[in-house]
Amino acid sequence: MKRVLIDMDEVIADPMGAMITWYEKEYGGKVDYSKMDGSWAYGFPEEHRHLIRPKLNEPGFFRHLPVMKDAVAVLEEINKKYELFIVSAAMEFPNSLKDKLEWLGDHFPFITWQQVTLCGDKRLVSGDFMIDDHTKNLDTFGGKQYLFTSPHNLSVDKYDRINSWEEAAKIFLS
Amino acid sequence: MKRVLIDMDEVIADPMGAMITWYEKEYGGKVDYSKMDGSWAYGFPEEHRHLIRPKLNEPGFFRHLPVMKDAVAVLEEINKKYELFIVSAAMEFPNSLKDKLEWLGDHFPFITWQQVTLCGDKRLVSGDFMIDDHTKNLDTFGGKQYLFTSPHNLSVDKYDRINSWEEAAKIFLS
Repeated sequence: MKRVLIDMDEVIADPMGAMITWYEKEYGGKVDYSKMDGSWAYGFPEEHRHLIRPKLNEPGFFRHLPVMKDAVAVLEEINKKYELFIVSAAMEFPNSLKDKLEWLGDHFPFITWQQVTLCGDKRLVSGDFMIDDHTKNLDTFGGKQYLFTSPHNLSVDKYDRINSWEEAAKIFLS
Repeated sequence: MKRVLIDMDEVIADPMGAMITWYEKEYGGKVDYSKMDGSWAYGFPEEHRHLIRPKLNEPGFFRHLPVMKDAVAVLEEINKKYELFIVSAAMEFPNSLKDKLEWLGDHFPFITWQQVTLCGDKRLVSGDFMIDDHTKNLDTFGGKQYLFTSPHNLSVDKYDRINSWEEAAKIFLS
């Protein structure tokens, strides 16, 4: 069985979406998607950008994120045909660790705790395929890399892209 | 720089010792080290063995563990000469995740969050050296394996052993 490593944030979970919803409600501001090249934080007005980091480390933030469209159904099938691992560079936000594991349990109950890795640096992990929205994670991976499209990585052209889980299904399940 | 992966429990941290201290104080029982072959839990009287699992998942248990003798000084030196990563199969105990990261921060402040991986299965990680007390973790590792001696693995003879951090220093630092 080939091994597929799948990232969480901006790939199966939507912290950017949750942050925007929270920000627009609490501060009445508007994010600018056209400024997100490099980091989605750049889409937030500069005077409010400092709000993002503490929010990301707030207990509960990663516990209640929206799930990316079609991720559950497609991962359930990938999980039958591949050795599936969830790999999230979560260590920067200590309060996210348990939240992320429990969020996975809620939405992806077919993924066991044995299949979850929370790390600080993805150089350590190996497998046949990696799906991630960050080039820094893909750059050091020894297998086939797929960049999962996100507003912050639209200008990247060094990796094959997956634009949606529907598209991922065509690659991995057909 | 060669990469060294180092386990936490029974290698740099002492959950077995903390469990024994707690058990003997709370229940007045005695553990039998000669029965620990395969698992240190076997050293506990059978009627009290069910106490161990909930205790391991109690918030705070992994936050206040004793540090293994000489581990801090030797890891500090290893960290200068190698690419050091801490890899702990912690995912079974969700409440341990943040505790483990904070415990590392207290005792090993020279180890950054980038160097920490908490996982469910160590098959995923790769490197040049692994120091671990469990054969299941060493078995799938592609580099050189060292079994860190612990009461539960005394009968294992398939790997080179490290019996103490003083001994590790001789192997890695001389």
